[in-house]
Amino acid sequence: MNQTSQDVMKWISEEYYDLNGSHFDTIDALPSALEFSQLIRTARPVLIKDCPAPKAFARWTDEYLAKSCGDSPISVAVTPNGRADAITQNEDGRLYFAEPLVEQMTMKGFLAKLASVDSEVLYLQSQDGNLFSSNRNIPSEFHKILSDVPEHLPFCTEALDNMPDAVNLWIGSSKSVTSIHSDPYENIYSVIRGSKTFTVFPPTEGWCMEERVYPHATYLRVGDDSELILVPSEEPPVRWSSITDPTDPKAISSSAHPITITVQAGQSLYLPAGWWHYVRQTEMTIAVNYWYDMESRGSSWVWLNLLRGGASNVSLLPGNEGDDIMDDEDDSEEDEP
Amino acid sequence: MNQTSQDVMKWISEEYYDLNGSHFDTIDALPSALEFSQLIRTARPVLIKDCPAPKAFARWTDEYLAKSCGDSPISVAVTPNGRADAITQNEDGRLYFAEPLVEQMTMKGFLAKLASVDSEVLYLQSQDGNLFSSNRNIPSEFHKILSDVPEHLPFCTEALDNMPDAVNLWIGSSKSVTSIHSDPYENIYSVIRGSKTFTVFPPTEGWCMEERVYPHATYLRVGDDSELILVPSEEPPVRWSSITDPTDPKAISSSAHPITITVQAGQSLYLPAGWWHYVRQTEMTIAVNYWYDMESRGSSWVWLNLLRGGASNVSLLPGNEGDDIMDDEDDSEEDEP
Ligand SMILES: O=C(O)CCC(=O)C(=O)O
Ligand SMILES: O=C(O)CCC(=O)C(=O)O
Repeated sequence: MNQTSQDVMKWISEEYYDLNGSHFDTIDALPSALEFSQLIRTARPVLIKDCPAPKAFARWTDEYLAKSCGDSPISVAVTPNGRADAITQNEDGRLYFAEPLVEQMTMKGFLAKLASVDSEVLYLQSQDGNLFSSNRNIPSEFHKILSDVPEHLPFCTEALDNMPDAVNLWIGSSKSVTSIHSDPYENIYSVIRGSKTFTVFPPTEGWCMEERVYPHATYLRVGDDSELILVPSEEPPVRWSSITDPTDPKAISSSAHPITITVQAGQSLYLPAGWWHYVRQTEMTIAVNYWYDMESRGSSWVWLNLLRGGASNVSLLPGNEGDDIMDDEDDSEEDEP
Repeated sequence: MNQTSQDVMKWISEEYYDLNGSHFDTIDALPSALEFSQLIRTARPVLIKDCPAPKAFARWTDEYLAKSCGDSPISVAVTPNGRADAITQNEDGRLYFAEPLVEQMTMKGFLAKLASVDSEVLYLQSQDGNLFSSNRNIPSEFHKILSDVPEHLPFCTEALDNMPDAVNLWIGSSKSVTSIHSDPYENIYSVIRGSKTFTVFPPTEGWCMEERVYPHATYLRVGDDSELILVPSEEPPVRWSSITDPTDPKAISSSAHPITITVQAGQSLYLPAGWWHYVRQTEMTIAVNYWYDMESRGSSWVWLNLLRGGASNVSLLPGNEGDDIMDDEDDSEEDEP
């Protein structure tokens, strides 16, 4: 980013912080569609306490999940360290955007491995609408428990005038981490068991996330029982944040203001489109989240694109219309978190 | 504005135009609070046809207004050319931000003068909540007809969770013009008689409005019947657009995309906060409008401030936090359109 663009980004993030601070609202019940529309307008995270979980979720014990899913294979991310889709140094000394090995197993096998001490970390994070998807033709791997899950959230659907783009199931252990990134989605994230801790930053602090373009690599296993190795791939390079631990004050710019929000079982987080998030859990955690497409009309898209550096090259490359960074990322890496 | 900031502004306005074009929606009835909240989110102008006007407005003939207002003095803007609050060249050859002479008269006297051919142009545009105001202590000059006017619009009040900041009455002739400017208000503008033509530009095209700082001047009359003269004043200088006629394609940058919207009697325009507008009428026109404070949380304020050039000096003056341009204007010129 050239100096002046960076100065503009700094100005924006300071103005935004002066106005909004690090506050997030906590509300005691699900909002109405009108209230949610107002929350989207303000675009700050909101912790929703005491939202009545669908009754069926009370049944979601390990035994019930294992039995219901039966023999159906499910896709599980496997890494040596819990860091799927994260910047990782390989043996060659270079940094890569590392995708996990995806292994198929039964729900029963997965839950057993998750509970046992293991040198590898499993995370059910296939996302991309692994429960319901607006554009998927193949059936969900979880079709046997889908009747337990609401296909949409009426207050969001009404406020956004659209069904969710994707509904995802996440099951991970204390070792599963999701590296810092942002999505062009309005996100409603509901914890069913355990708890999730989100470290979030507003879109205005994107310039502090040190995004760089990294070559792509994937964890592979050569023999059936051999160790995972990280193998550079032919996939296009990936633009990703260089910050591996944004909870470490020494790792982030003093201009960035992390907000930490822990979502307990029975609670939901509204995370507005474009907010940066890093996600951890301290115990076995089950969650379901709803990604709704953000409003494409008006200025939100331009605003988020600007904050991801879309305009940063315009004066260096005369005639360049600027990269549509958010589109690019969507095209090249459709199944990232 | 330094070159790079200007490049960023150009990039933003092109991206915004690519996404939104010059389209404006027309809806056939008043929106619900939820629908209006969605419209605020998109922040595009909307023409509302067939909105049921308060019944009392049907009574607003000249005779009724004159009789109802009786002897109460009302404040009327007087200019030689219909251009109150506009950039005007004085006899000294310099350009000034020219405020009108404000004369007190009865409604009856005003309406009679408005109808007669005259060398001077009258415009009832005292605004600033001349009907209802959230922070006015003195009674309205129109207190005798206030019971005809709804104090707020329930769909807006509910969507914005706030009463209007100001409700204004406008009565002008074919010669009255309002020069191009933007306000930090969500504006619902209802035409009661005649019609208004708005030429509007999105906030993203603010950099094309050629805002400059002009010395302040006021029209004065030396003797009771003498001609108006423009007299430089001690008031602080005013930042204002240099474009006197944005409907003239030769007068505006090819990067600016005017949208022309004519609002007929019985119709209302929703003009989102920060949109630039130039307003004319071809005949005697009566209108009432509602200014609601824009959302101050979140990013809207920062966005509009950025688009008015708030960040343009940051790299020229290291350590300068940037002027809060929208605040400044509010402080120095509280009663402008
Ligand atoms: O739960 C997680 O690990 C990540 C969630 C996430 O990134 C999302 O919901 O967008
Ligand atoms: O009606 C007019 O002349 C001007 C209206 C205006 O500027 C406004 O409603 O903000």
